[in-house]
Amino acid sequence: MKIAIINGPNLNLLGKREPEIYGNINFEDFFKSLQNEYQTADLIYFQSNHEGFIIDTLHEIGFSYDGIILNAGAYSHTSIAIADAVRAISTPVIEVHLSNIYSREPFRHHSYISETAAGVICGFGLQSYKLALQSLINL
Amino acid sequence: MKIAIINGPNLNLLGKREPEIYGNINFEDFFKSLQNEYQTADLIYFQSNHEGFIIDTLHEIGFSYDGIILNAGAYSHTSIAIADAVRAISTPVIEVHLSNIYSREPFRHHSYISETAAGVICGFGLQSYKLALQSLINL
Amino acid sequence: MKIAIINGPNLNLLGKREPEIYGNINFEDFFKSLQNEYQTADLIYFQSNHEGFIIDTLHEIGFSYDGIILNAGAYSHTSIAIADAVRAISTPVIEVHLSNIYSREPFRHHSYISETAAGVICGFGLQSYKLALQSLINL
Amino acid sequence: MKIAIINGPNLNLLGKREPEIYGNINFEDFFKSLQNEYQTADLIYFQSNHEGFIIDTLHEIGFSYDGIILNAGAYSHTSIAIADAVRAISTPVIEVHLSNIYSREPFRHHSYISETAAGVICGFGLQSYKLALQSLINL
Amino acid sequence: MKIAIINGPNLNLLGKREPEIYGNINFEDFFKSLQNEYQTADLIYFQSNHEGFIIDTLHEIGFSYDGIILNAGAYSHTSIAIADAVRAISTPVIEVHLSNIYSREPFRHHSYISETAAGVICGFGLQSYKLALQSLINL
Amino acid sequence: MKIAIINGPNLNLLGKREPEIYGNINFEDFFKSLQNEYQTADLIYFQSNHEGFIIDTLHEIGFSYDGIILNAGAYSHTSIAIADAVRAISTPVIEVHLSNIYSREPFRHHSYISETAAGVICGFGLQSYKLALQSLINL
Amino acid sequence: MKIAIINGPNLNLLGKREPEIYGNINFEDFFKSLQNEYQTADLIYFQSNHEGFIIDTLHEIGFSYDGIILNAGAYSHTSIAIADAVRAISTPVIEVHLSNIYSREPFRHHSYISETAAGVICGFGLQSYKLALQSLINL
Amino acid sequence: MKIAIINGPNLNLLGKREPEIYGNINFEDFFKSLQNEYQTADLIYFQSNHEGFIIDTLHEIGFSYDGIILNAGAYSHTSIAIADAVRAISTPVIEVHLSNIYSREPFRHHSYISETAAGVICGFGLQSYKLALQSLINL
Amino acid sequence: MKIAIINGPNLNLLGKREPEIYGNINFEDFFKSLQNEYQTADLIYFQSNHEGFIIDTLHEIGFSYDGIILNAGAYSHTSIAIADAVRAISTPVIEVHLSNIYSREPFRHHSYISETAAGVICGFGLQSYKLALQSLINL
Amino acid sequence: MKIAIINGPNLNLLGKREPEIYGNINFEDFFKSLQNEYQTADLIYFQSNHEGFIIDTLHEIGFSYDGIILNAGAYSHTSIAIADAVRAISTPVIEVHLSNIYSREPFRHHSYISETAAGVICGFGLQSYKLALQSLINL
Amino acid sequence: MKIAIINGPNLNLLGKREPEIYGNINFEDFFKSLQNEYQTADLIYFQSNHEGFIIDTLHEIGFSYDGIILNAGAYSHTSIAIADAVRAISTPVIEVHLSNIYSREPFRHHSYISETAAGVICGFGLQSYKLALQSLINL
Amino acid sequence: MKIAIINGPNLNLLGKREPEIYGNINFEDFFKSLQNEYQTADLIYFQSNHEGFIIDTLHEIGFSYDGIILNAGAYSHTSIAIADAVRAISTPVIEVHLSNIYSREPFRHHSYISETAAGVICGFGLQSYKLALQSLINL
Repeated sequence: MKIAIINGPNLNLLGKREPEIYGNINFEDFFKSLQNEYQTADLIYFQSNHEGFIIDTLHEIGFSYDGIILNAGAYSHTSIAIADAVRAISTPVIEVHLSNIYSREPFRHHSYISETAAGVICGFGLQSYKLALQSLINL
Repeated sequence: MKIAIINGPNLNLLGKREPEIYGNINFEDFFKSLQNEYQTADLIYFQSNHEGFIIDTLHEIGFSYDGIILNAGAYSHTSIAIADAVRAISTPVIEVHLSNIYSREPFRHHSYISETAAGVICGFGLQSYKLALQSLINL
Repeated sequence: MKIAIINGPNLNLLGKREPEIYGNINFEDFFKSLQNEYQTADLIYFQSNHEGFIIDTLHEIGFSYDGIILNAGAYSHTSIAIADAVRAISTPVIEVHLSNIYSREPFRHHSYISETAAGVICGFGLQSYKLALQSLINL
Repeated sequence: MKIAIINGPNLNLLGKREPEIYGNINFEDFFKSLQNEYQTADLIYFQSNHEGFIIDTLHEIGFSYDGIILNAGAYSHTSIAIADAVRAISTPVIEVHLSNIYSREPFRHHSYISETAAGVICGFGLQSYKLALQSLINL
Repeated sequence: MKIAIINGPNLNLLGKREPEIYGNINFEDFFKSLQNEYQTADLIYFQSNHEGFIIDTLHEIGFSYDGIILNAGAYSHTSIAIADAVRAISTPVIEVHLSNIYSREPFRHHSYISETAAGVICGFGLQSYKLALQSLINL
Repeated sequence: MKIAIINGPNLNLLGKREPEIYGNINFEDFFKSLQNEYQTADLIYFQSNHEGFIIDTLHEIGFSYDGIILNAGAYSHTSIAIADAVRAISTPVIEVHLSNIYSREPFRHHSYISETAAGVICGFGLQSYKLALQSLINL
Repeated sequence: MKIAIINGPNLNLLGKREPEIYGNINFEDFFKSLQNEYQTADLIYFQSNHEGFIIDTLHEIGFSYDGIILNAGAYSHTSIAIADAVRAISTPVIEVHLSNIYSREPFRHHSYISETAAGVICGFGLQSYKLALQSLINL
Repeated sequence: MKIAIINGPNLNLLGKREPEIYGNINFEDFFKSLQNEYQTADLIYFQSNHEGFIIDTLHEIGFSYDGIILNAGAYSHTSIAIADAVRAISTPVIEVHLSNIYSREPFRHHSYISETAAGVICGFGLQSYKLALQSLINL
Repeated sequence: MKIAIINGPNLNLLGKREPEIYGNINFEDFFKSLQNEYQTADLIYFQSNHEGFIIDTLHEIGFSYDGIILNAGAYSHTSIAIADAVRAISTPVIEVHLSNIYSREPFRHHSYISETAAGVICGFGLQSYKLALQSLINL
Repeated sequence: MKIAIINGPNLNLLGKREPEIYGNINFEDFFKSLQNEYQTADLIYFQSNHEGFIIDTLHEIGFSYDGIILNAGAYSHTSIAIADAVRAISTPVIEVHLSNIYSREPFRHHSYISETAAGVICGFGLQSYKLALQSLINL
Repeated sequence: MKIAIINGPNLNLLGKREPEIYGNINFEDFFKSLQNEYQTADLIYFQSNHEGFIIDTLHEIGFSYDGIILNAGAYSHTSIAIADAVRAISTPVIEVHLSNIYSREPFRHHSYISETAAGVICGFGLQSYKLALQSLINL
Repeated sequence: MKIAIINGPNLNLLGKREPEIYGNINFEDFFKSLQNEYQTADLIYFQSNHEGFIIDTLHEIGFSYDGIILNAGAYSHTSIAIADAVRAISTPVIEVHLSNIYSREPFRHHSYISETAAGVICGFGLQSYKLALQSLINL
């Protein structure tokens, strides 16, 4: 079972950036623990601050992988192009967010990706990824 | 560990109502399978079509239970009073929805409960409840 | 042929409340005259000020009755839950209003129920119910 | 008792145009059956695709007829001038629509005529006209 | 000096229609008194309930007359086509209204014609036409 | 002089719920001190989390009592039905709020009840009730 | 016959300020020519950049004068207080504007004064005042 | 105990202006009766139609007085500057209105002052001031 | 191959009206050159300032022609009735505009016809018609 | 004559992605047929999912090419930066879309590029490019 | 070189008012240090809480001074009249704000003055005035 | 002291692009003159049309530099991701714009960066950068 995690802009700063909102654990460390816990799954991880790179990646893996966990960060609220890429591929995509985007600034309440995602999980910190992974395995 | 599931209006019709959106499994049957799978947790289940009953129930269990999984159905979009009840109690509340509310009618895109919930999970059908339960156990 | 009339909040005050808008006839008396006039139909009448009760009633009769005439009063403008109940059942529902809601305050111009009702009749006073009944019999 | 039916733009195509929405009966045939059924009433029928013609007609008959049944079609949503004509005349006007305009595109949800009509009936197909006629006779 | 008065929909009912808003004088009588008072000007008067006729008339006289006084009635609020005709011709157009449109329903507060008219006069009853005529003569 | 206080949803948690906004005194205790202070008035107190119950109560006492002090809590912002009940009865209703609703979230700034209440008092904590009582006695 | 002209903010710069919009004649000179032309009327002229002064002046003369011509300039678009003063006095007020406010920036399209004025005249340059004066004399 | 009442624009016309909304008592007379009734308090009264004067007065007394009762009239709806002055001073300010602003024109429903006031009282006529005074004494 | 060009309001003034926006060629001359260039197609041309006439024409030719090129002018932005006629007929309709409507006033940015047209071409001056014709021939 | 076609995000999936909307022909194949048909023109083709790359390309060729055909895909609706690049260069740009964007989701109805493009062509599938090419050659 | 600083409402409280936003230095002291530092410039300082006074001052100095630094405080967000005065005079005006108005309440995000100012500087505390002064000297 | 200037999309065309808005000096030349003038500061300059590159650069230098001057061009209005990067780093960021964005098209009036920037300077042409640099040195 091949599953990819794609993180969008500023998520490379996790652990450094506004820890009162995003927690203080580094994503790479978390990803390793995730690989240990779910050894039957073939996990891969991408991060980019470039909208175009995220689209390229979705195209490349979106017809062969079994699942994609996508945290598009701030691009969730502004990128119709990424949402179109999700719509265009055949692999199911789970949208995740670390923080509860609905209790933050109004411009974070709407995500173009939500309406095309298979499901949405938000507000559980890094656990959001684990729940998304669990949901793909259960599928 | 005591965890309650509270279902709001029309969810008693699950399995009968618009099966192309909500699936055709009866919630009572699903709940039994959930109890079997998570025997270490003490699970309880409420359903009501009455906004006031949901508020009363949140008040009663919201200071002693370890977690609440709330699917307030259509009241999610109109009830500030339920959201205030969630805000008023100390037990963490996970908001779940069977369908992906963001890909349906615009009046279902906003939930008053989301901004006060600990986390939001939607679009996974009955599995949404299982993921919410998992997240409360992981806490 | 089994047909139910369901009246929502404040309609129990009919005849007493703002007679310049709603007329001064009591609904119970009107209902009796309706039963007399349409003796071939099996008519039943419910009134409640409780949103949840209206939903419960729609669920109970909404799979066995031949038609429902619903005047949800002020809940028409705020209740997605009642509209969802109408959507969930198989009996056709005719929405009626005594007054012409489109010539009153702006917040009465939109009804969540209209888009899911089989038809809408408004502005004819108590005659609205008679026309709705006629339309169900003609069906 | 003199009653006129006025149909607005595109209703001359009834039976030909989008039958899944408007049904496949020709209005002229329906009108004849209506005349047969209600022989005590003196029925007349107008159709025009011209907003100005509809206004002219309302002026001509609007002080001598006993009732007008108006389906202004798409002009319902854009014509303040027709609504003003309804407001200006003394004959009561019943607004009818074949389809349930509230369950279609948002720009069909509002009708300038509704707020000045004596009553509104919509969503019953051709039966809408019959109910309107009945309501005028009951008056 | 050639000056035309063009009246739009429902203004042919003047004197009959809602006299508490529009007064009870017939426009033809008023027009004759206007001709008497301003004998040096060559006055002509058109009225139509047809948007297209108003445009045709503006085209016909809009390159040779010295001034046009236009009361487009309800078309003021909905017709970009008439406003475009005013924009397209070379004769200056004064917009007039009998009633104060700004103290009536919100949908009467905006006029597409105002932004392209040479001037706007409203709220003076039939005197509005006289003031407009005076302004054209003063020019 | 018979005066009723009606409290809406979540106000039964007063003293427990978010004390930084609502203070930490229990309403029952406060009510007793109010009865002591105003012995000439016949005071009665209701609380419910059910919208329908509040409407029922307004109907029952709204034609015989001398005054009603209503804190509809979160229903103030969503319930046209309660506002209609206030409109339908003859007893004057004073709307009160513990906190200053205008300095909180935008969805708390508008109350359907305000426009039909005899007066509005908000932001004085429990003293709001005392001022409302005083205003009814002064009447 | 006593008639006052009240000019609001920046109108003292007339002749200096943006002459392509407002023309290059000084108001004082224009006012003298107006007095010469209408010697039977007792004309008086006020100008102030102070919202408060305009309100005070309306109060002082608004119960004894026969007519007021008010060009409130930019305050037209923001001052509910001046509009309330117009509403509060008994002398009829004609609103005038030099330029056609409807063909300028959107924030100049709405005037709080229009809905309470007896009539509105705009777009005729200084002639707007003359037409307003004429309309008051004709009254 | 030093308490000031500050009245804004047009309130000097009280008793003269629209008595069906504002009553027919002169504020000076009412103020004297208030001084008689509350002799232990040191009451002072200001009225101005000038936004700037109201701000100046708030600055002058807003660090030494024990309470301010402010009816900013129409400035309530437009003046961020007065609201900033209330925010800037240390004396608590109670906002009052004679009429129920929520049942009047839409542009009177929002007050910039409400969100910064200690409390809001409206709709009790002149009694609004008395209740505000009482609330300050109780503090 | 039978193809019709239908031009709406004010397009009869082409060559005369605002040449900086619409060019200075007369449509009749252009139409002749088009007939010369595309002799295999059977071209016909209609123009009207009447909304109703445009609808009538669409009905008459809309079930037998092979293609319609429609420039509804200002009616594009206001006429749901013309858009409904396009929806009702079976001949494909290409919407054209001479100018780029998206770089003009906001009220010209939206066309009711666009959503029901087979395609949209705008901003190429008279060439817009040639491209539309080419597209129909290519079909 | 040098002409470039620039395709934006997800258009590399043409033929694979949602064929019911976008057709099932691969763009590279179509481009070759276009080169064959228009051998006198020097055609070049770019595609990128990166907003920045599209801007870079517009800068590079936008001062030397004779025409650019731009289908910016989803970036049409969100990228002011690409629209600014179109505005900044001297080569005329024709905006094209495969599908009729006006009959899809509301967020696809507005394009930042339209207002700065020389012309807009949409809804003709791959033929849209051919018509755009034709229009540039005709220029 | 003559340069004026004009401060609007509540800025006289600088040093006293909400020091966590505005700092705790008195403006008069700051102004003296500014005069010391820029002795070649002839600096003058005005403050008023009166909208009208600010307009009068702009008129008086706005044709002879070399630059004006304007902090209109809360009037920035509501006063079209001050913005018109800025538009009417010939001296360039730099708009300054102490705090970053874009990160405060929404009603402070828009300034009528910004669009007519020569430049805008905000968020640098008292240094904002120094940068503005520097920019005028550099001119 | 290390200070970076980051320029966003289309700013590489400075001197070429729309010189009436942006002036005709090349940024590289201006940057050299800036380095000459401020030799004590260690200045560095980046430009990119790629949103992702700007974010990458902010991350790289945003924890070690003393100040960043950011002109994100059109991305200011659309990129929450760049604003988040500014929020995430510790170096203070000054937002600059060459032109006065508030006097241009409405879609340029709002910048996501403004609310998180330390300060905003706009409308001074290239001098905007110099003032920003000065403000960082003064810090």
